[in-house]
Amino acid sequence: MSFDPATFAPRHFLWGFDDGVATITLNRPERKNPLTFDSYDELRDTFWALDKSYDVKAIVLTGAGGNFCSGGDVHEIIGPLTRMDEDGLLAFTRMTGDLVRAMRACPQPVIAAVEGVCAGAGAILAMASDLRFAAPDAKAAFLFTRVGLSGADMGACAILPRIIGHGRAAELLFTGRNMSAEEGAAWGFWNRLADDPLAEAQTLARQLASGPSRAHFVTKKMLDAEWHVSIEEAIEMEARAQAECMQTRDFHRAFEAFANKRQPDFQGD
Amino acid sequence: MSFDPATFAPRHFLWGFDDGVATITLNRPERKNPLTFDSYDELRDTFWALDKSYDVKAIVLTGAGGNFCSGGDVHEIIGPLTRMDEDGLLAFTRMTGDLVRAMRACPQPVIAAVEGVCAGAGAILAMASDLRFAAPDAKAAFLFTRVGLSGADMGACAILPRIIGHGRAAELLFTGRNMSAEEGAAWGFWNRLADDPLAEAQTLARQLASGPSRAHFVTKKMLDAEWHVSIEEAIEMEARAQAECMQTRDFHRAFEAFANKRQPDFQGD
Amino acid sequence: MSFDPATFAPRHFLWGFDDGVATITLNRPERKNPLTFDSYDELRDTFWALDKSYDVKAIVLTGAGGNFCSGGDVHEIIGPLTRMDEDGLLAFTRMTGDLVRAMRACPQPVIAAVEGVCAGAGAILAMASDLRFAAPDAKAAFLFTRVGLSGADMGACAILPRIIGHGRAAELLFTGRNMSAEEGAAWGFWNRLADDPLAEAQTLARQLASGPSRAHFVTKKMLDAEWHVSIEEAIEMEARAQAECMQTRDFHRAFEAFANKRQPDFQGD
Repeated sequence: MSFDPATFAPRHFLWGFDDGVATITLNRPERKNPLTFDSYDELRDTFWALDKSYDVKAIVLTGAGGNFCSGGDVHEIIGPLTRMDEDGLLAFTRMTGDLVRAMRACPQPVIAAVEGVCAGAGAILAMASDLRFAAPDAKAAFLFTRVGLSGADMGACAILPRIIGHGRAAELLFTGRNMSAEEGAAWGFWNRLADDPLAEAQTLARQLASGPSRAHFVTKKMLDAEWHVSIEEAIEMEARAQAECMQTRDFHRAFEAFANKRQPDFQGD
Repeated sequence: MSFDPATFAPRHFLWGFDDGVATITLNRPERKNPLTFDSYDELRDTFWALDKSYDVKAIVLTGAGGNFCSGGDVHEIIGPLTRMDEDGLLAFTRMTGDLVRAMRACPQPVIAAVEGVCAGAGAILAMASDLRFAAPDAKAAFLFTRVGLSGADMGACAILPRIIGHGRAAELLFTGRNMSAEEGAAWGFWNRLADDPLAEAQTLARQLASGPSRAHFVTKKMLDAEWHVSIEEAIEMEARAQAECMQTRDFHRAFEAFANKRQPDFQGD
Repeated sequence: MSFDPATFAPRHFLWGFDDGVATITLNRPERKNPLTFDSYDELRDTFWALDKSYDVKAIVLTGAGGNFCSGGDVHEIIGPLTRMDEDGLLAFTRMTGDLVRAMRACPQPVIAAVEGVCAGAGAILAMASDLRFAAPDAKAAFLFTRVGLSGADMGACAILPRIIGHGRAAELLFTGRNMSAEEGAAWGFWNRLADDPLAEAQTLARQLASGPSRAHFVTKKMLDAEWHVSIEEAIEMEARAQAECMQTRDFHRAFEAFANKRQPDFQGD
């Protein structure tokens, strides 16, 4: 996939690119932005392409028309799944899981900007982002149980407890109930509540994009990689990772700027 | 152990079974429901038996007389332990740990309903449940340090930090102090505070029992299994687990119900 | 290193020893107590020496003059780093990581008492402690990104999410922003806010020092060791660890005291 962020024209979502920040907008507002087989596919391919797209320094993920994403559509996704055989189902769950893997693997910090409905796979997309800003009307629901499925969807049983703890994650996944915006903020799911989460997400994304991008990537990668290793091993992993960051030009730029009482002008190299 | 939930008559606790929900009530209220060697044994055997008891869809664990459980009795447990040799002590700590393993291994979601004292092994029983409801007077104390022991009791150093975080768990385990109901709710230990936690626990248990039981079991199992693996591995584990859930009748029932604008009638198969 | 806590006279920080409690005070208040190559070295050697110093039962870590620690000094640390080669950088990051390893490996609970600035490596020292008390003016900042570095510094990407969750840790490490005292308390980073955190830390340290020290060490060790293992494995690890604690004299002292309605007089053996 040849990928130029300045000219990229996806079919199943909106794309913006400005100041190093890519904005992905799910855009079927009349249905609250559900996912389809095709939009899953294109989102996954896009995040994998971003893995090599060094001009994109940060990503904002949002939905059009006052809602984030209503998840997998009942008629376009759930219906066809009930007619698939075992191999087809596993291909589907691997494909959706692969979208989360791509979001976690790409070097750019991903900031979700969420209003209104954020349900099912939509809640997963928020969860799989690095940071999450929400409007006071945001309602996140990991509602898989309501369609007869488990909470083990696209990594939720691994990632959600790491964000909000095991007990709260268990409640959300067993019941499928809405998490209110206030709960989500108190529990650490939302990093910030804001009347205009998209504007604030883009402001932070621009700030991160003007920062030391290689270092941000290391932060993102190590936050995932160190969860399940020993403290001993994590410390050695960080010694190696940070020693590499100390060889970047951005680290030298920072020192020179501070020594001269200026703000550093990071370039991402 | 032949086990029929409709006729089960344990010797060391009360048993109720209704609407697919088993209720276990610790019942020595004059002593605040302490555990003894015999009640440990019978609880462990019961949870292991529940592993194969598909009629039981959810479990409520509570205590009689306004308290949950005061833990291992000083005279009935701690005294005899001080006279045991190394092999005897290890057999005891493995037996108590095995109760937690049985609670985590059984397919049914376990909801603890806690009033008043919830101390020592009692706090462990609450911790080892899937969900926890508490009355405003609930006082949970991991008080092992007060009898000269470590916080490493029945899995506490692993499970408690996964629920409330490493720093708060460290404080409770080093000091043995009471966690107030308000603290426990703010920290994610209690899922809900309620004046009548038993009634609310049974209401939720009935709701879960009428849900997709096989999917609930997958949720429970994966929440434990994915904590200590990589995100990559967790996503593959979930792809397999959810693809299996998509082959259940409950998933098909859900689709048909939604397509016909009805509520699904889950059967657990 | 021959080490006597009663006569120890470090060169790069203050040392106090009283009632089994060692107090380490970073003491360059005119610069807000920055770290230098020499003070890193001496702190690390001291924590490794404490590993075998059984007279020291608890440790308080604090800073002089109303601030905790401003981290690695720009001119004394960052400047020289920009002139080092790869091997030198790795030796440095391993040395700083080794300080955290020593803090986590020593048997004594470490309580950080934090006022004012707590930045960079200073925030790491607080994070690497077992418990953290802060004044209302405490500002913790994992500000590595501001000097062009990643959040993967001295174990932060492993340890910080275990304390405050993955989402909040990501925000602090990506942005380098200050965490206010209120945020830190709400998120479980600070165990307590106090107008005089040093006095309260020393009071708790004396209380822990008069407790069952061998059991405290097991608690500390197991809290770290069990994070990344399965529940099954953790329960077996605890069965072994607690069975050993039940062979201590402190456990027997506790039983005899409770049987005689006295407070136990723990000796740490």
